[in-house]
Amino acid sequence: MSKFWSPLTASLVPYVPGEQPKDKTYIKLNTNENPYPPSPKAIEAIQKAADADLRLYPDPTCETLVEAAAGYYGLSASQVFVGNGSDEILAFAFAAFFNPEKKLLFPDITYSFYKVYAKLYGLQTELVPVNEQFQIEVASYTADNGGIILPNPNAPTAQLLPLADIRKLLDANTEQAVVIDEAYIDFGGESAVSLIQEYPNLLVIQTLSKSRSLAGLRVGLAFGSEELIDGLNRIKNSFNSYTLDRLALAGAVAALQDEAYFREATDRVIATRERVTHEAQRLGFKATDSKANFIFITHPEIPAKSIFQQLREKGVLVRYFDQPRIDEYLRVSIGTDEEMDAFVAALGDIVAG
Amino acid sequence: MSKFWSPLTASLVPYVPGEQPKDKTYIKLNTNENPYPPSPKAIEAIQKAADADLRLYPDPTCETLVEAAAGYYGLSASQVFVGNGSDEILAFAFAAFFNPEKKLLFPDITYSFYKVYAKLYGLQTELVPVNEQFQIEVASYTADNGGIILPNPNAPTAQLLPLADIRKLLDANTEQAVVIDEAYIDFGGESAVSLIQEYPNLLVIQTLSKSRSLAGLRVGLAFGSEELIDGLNRIKNSFNSYTLDRLALAGAVAALQDEAYFREATDRVIATRERVTHEAQRLGFKATDSKANFIFITHPEIPAKSIFQQLREKGVLVRYFDQPRIDEYLRVSIGTDEEMDAFVAALGDIVAG
Repeated sequence: MSKFWSPLTASLVPYVPGEQPKDKTYIKLNTNENPYPPSPKAIEAIQKAADADLRLYPDPTCETLVEAAAGYYGLSASQVFVGNGSDEILAFAFAAFFNPEKKLLFPDITYSFYKVYAKLYGLQTELVPVNEQFQIEVASYTADNGGIILPNPNAPTAQLLPLADIRKLLDANTEQAVVIDEAYIDFGGESAVSLIQEYPNLLVIQTLSKSRSLAGLRVGLAFGSEELIDGLNRIKNSFNSYTLDRLALAGAVAALQDEAYFREATDRVIATRERVTHEAQRLGFKATDSKANFIFITHPEIPAKSIFQQLREKGVLVRYFDQPRIDEYLRVSIGTDEEMDAFVAALGDIVAG
Repeated sequence: MSKFWSPLTASLVPYVPGEQPKDKTYIKLNTNENPYPPSPKAIEAIQKAADADLRLYPDPTCETLVEAAAGYYGLSASQVFVGNGSDEILAFAFAAFFNPEKKLLFPDITYSFYKVYAKLYGLQTELVPVNEQFQIEVASYTADNGGIILPNPNAPTAQLLPLADIRKLLDANTEQAVVIDEAYIDFGGESAVSLIQEYPNLLVIQTLSKSRSLAGLRVGLAFGSEELIDGLNRIKNSFNSYTLDRLALAGAVAALQDEAYFREATDRVIATRERVTHEAQRLGFKATDSKANFIFITHPEIPAKSIFQQLREKGVLVRYFDQPRIDEYLRVSIGTDEEMDAFVAALGDIVAG
C-alpha cells in the first residue's frame, strides 16, 4: 500500500499467471502452450520484418492483419479487431461494453482473469454456477444483466457448448453485449463467428497463442458487428495507438495463411489429448470431455494438491486451482507425445504410491 | 453510437496519431521517428529470438529487460517497469496514481494524449498555461492537485526544463505522484532518473521509439520508487500479464546494450537539428530552442496551415495542430540530412511564393 496509489490501484487483486520457475527444467504442462513450434512461414516473416523499418511506427490500424483475419472467416475488415493477445482484447471489451449499473454474468468456474477485469473497471458481477458436471447451462443466464462473458470451451473445465446453446443465449439476451472467448475453439469446437451477422451484440474473441503456437508473439483477434468493433477501437485509441509491433503483425499474417500447418499441429494435439485421457482413466482418474488443448482430471482417492506437488517434484508442472468446487482437479496442458508419456508414467507412480 | 457501448465508450474522444498516408511516398517528418535504423545488434537479437520458442509465453516479469534498464541507470530491478511503448505505461500511470477526487495538472500545450487518458480514467484536469515563449513555468503548478504530468522536453514545443526546475516542482508537490514523460530526453536533456532515490513520488517514463530507433517494436521504460513500480504492476497484472512479446524483449535488451551506436545516432540527429534550425531561421522562421528530435517553427507572415498544405503537396509530411496558441506553428521531425535538405528547399520555395 502506498499513499501515491489511486483508490483503484489499492482495490485491485491482480491476476497471477501460471508459474515459470527457473530452478530447473520442467515438463511444462501448466500454461496451455502448444508443444509444437509455430509455422515456419511465421518465423520467416518475422525474420524478414526485423529490419531497418523497425525505426518506423507500425500501422496503427493493423490493416494487413485485420484483412488476413477477415479473409480467413469471410468477413469484412470492419468486423475485425486485433490486439496484444486476447487478454488485452478482453480488457478492452470489459471497458467498452459492460454496463456498470447492472451485473455482469459469467460462470462461477471459469478463466480467473474475468473477475480481475471486473474489478479494474468497477463492474458488479454475478457468478452463474456451472452444473455438477461442470457444464455451462445457458438457461441459467436469466438475471437482468449488463453483459455476459463466457469461454467456449470453458477453462479450466475444457468443456464445449454447442453452437445451438450459444444461439439460445443470444436469443434471450439481445440488449447487451455477449462475449464468447474462444481461446481454445480450434481444438474441437465450432466457432460462433458464424453467428455475428445475425447478432449485432455478439463479440467473439480468439488468440494465436494456443492453436497457432504463438503465445510468445502476443496476438489476439476479435470478430463482431461494426458497432462493436468501433467500440473496441474507441477504447484502444484512448489507451495506446500501437498495441501490435511490426514483428507481431508480420508473423500473425503468415501464421493465419498457413492453414495446412495449423491443421496438422492441432490434429496432433487432439490425438494426444484423446490418448492421454484414456491413459489417465485407466489409472483411475475421471476427466471432463475436453475439446481444448488441456485436460481437467481428478482422482477419487488421492488429493489433487498432493498429486500436483508430487508431479512438481518429478519435474512435471501442471496447474492446480485452490478454489471451491475444483480443488480436487488438475488442469494439464497437452504436450508432445514424449512429454505426455513422462506425465502418464509419473501419474502411474503416484497412483501406485 | 451503439446501444451496446458502455457509458465510458460513448464519452471518449480517442487520440488520433500522425497520418500514415499510403497514396504516395512522402518524406515523413510528422511522427518524430528516428531517421536512422536501430542498432544492428538489436536486429540480430530479434532474428535470433524468432524461433520455435515463440510457442511459449514471454516472461511476464520481463526480467532480462528490467535488469538491462536498471543496470543502464545504476538502479535496482524493483525501481524499473517496462511496457508496450511509453503510451501504455502512461495509460497505466494515469490509472495507478492520479486521484480522481482532485485535479490532475498538466501544461495547456503538451502531448495531446494526456487529455484522452484523463477521460478514459474519469479524471478532472486543470491545464496550466505555458508562458508566451511556450516554456513550462513550474511555479504555476500551485493548485491543490491529485497528480502532475509533464513531458520533458515538452511536445510539441520541444523545450527543455532544467533539472533544478523539476526539483522545485517535486519539493512543492510531495503528497501525490509527479510523472515526467521523457520520450525525447536523449536529444540534449538531462534525465530526472537521477532524482528518483530522493523523491518517492517521482515516476520517469522513457521510450525506445525515438532515440533507440525502435518505434516499430513498442517498448517503453519507467523508473521510480519501489512503491510506484508496484502500483504500475498492479494495474498491468489486472490488464494483461504479457504486454511485451519475446521479440520486443530481445531487441530492447540488445538496443540498451549498444551505447556506442545510440550515441552516434542521437548525435547525428542533434547536429542535423541545429543545422536545420539555422536554415529555417535564415528563411525568416522563428524556432523554439529544441532539445528534442523535432523542431517547432512559425513564420511571421505565412499561415502555418498553408505551409503544412504546400509541404504536403511537395511530398513532405509535417505535423500541424489546429488548436489555440499553436495554430501558427509546425512540428517538424528531424530526418536524414538529405531529407532535411529537401524540406529546407521546399520551405524556401514556399517562402519565395
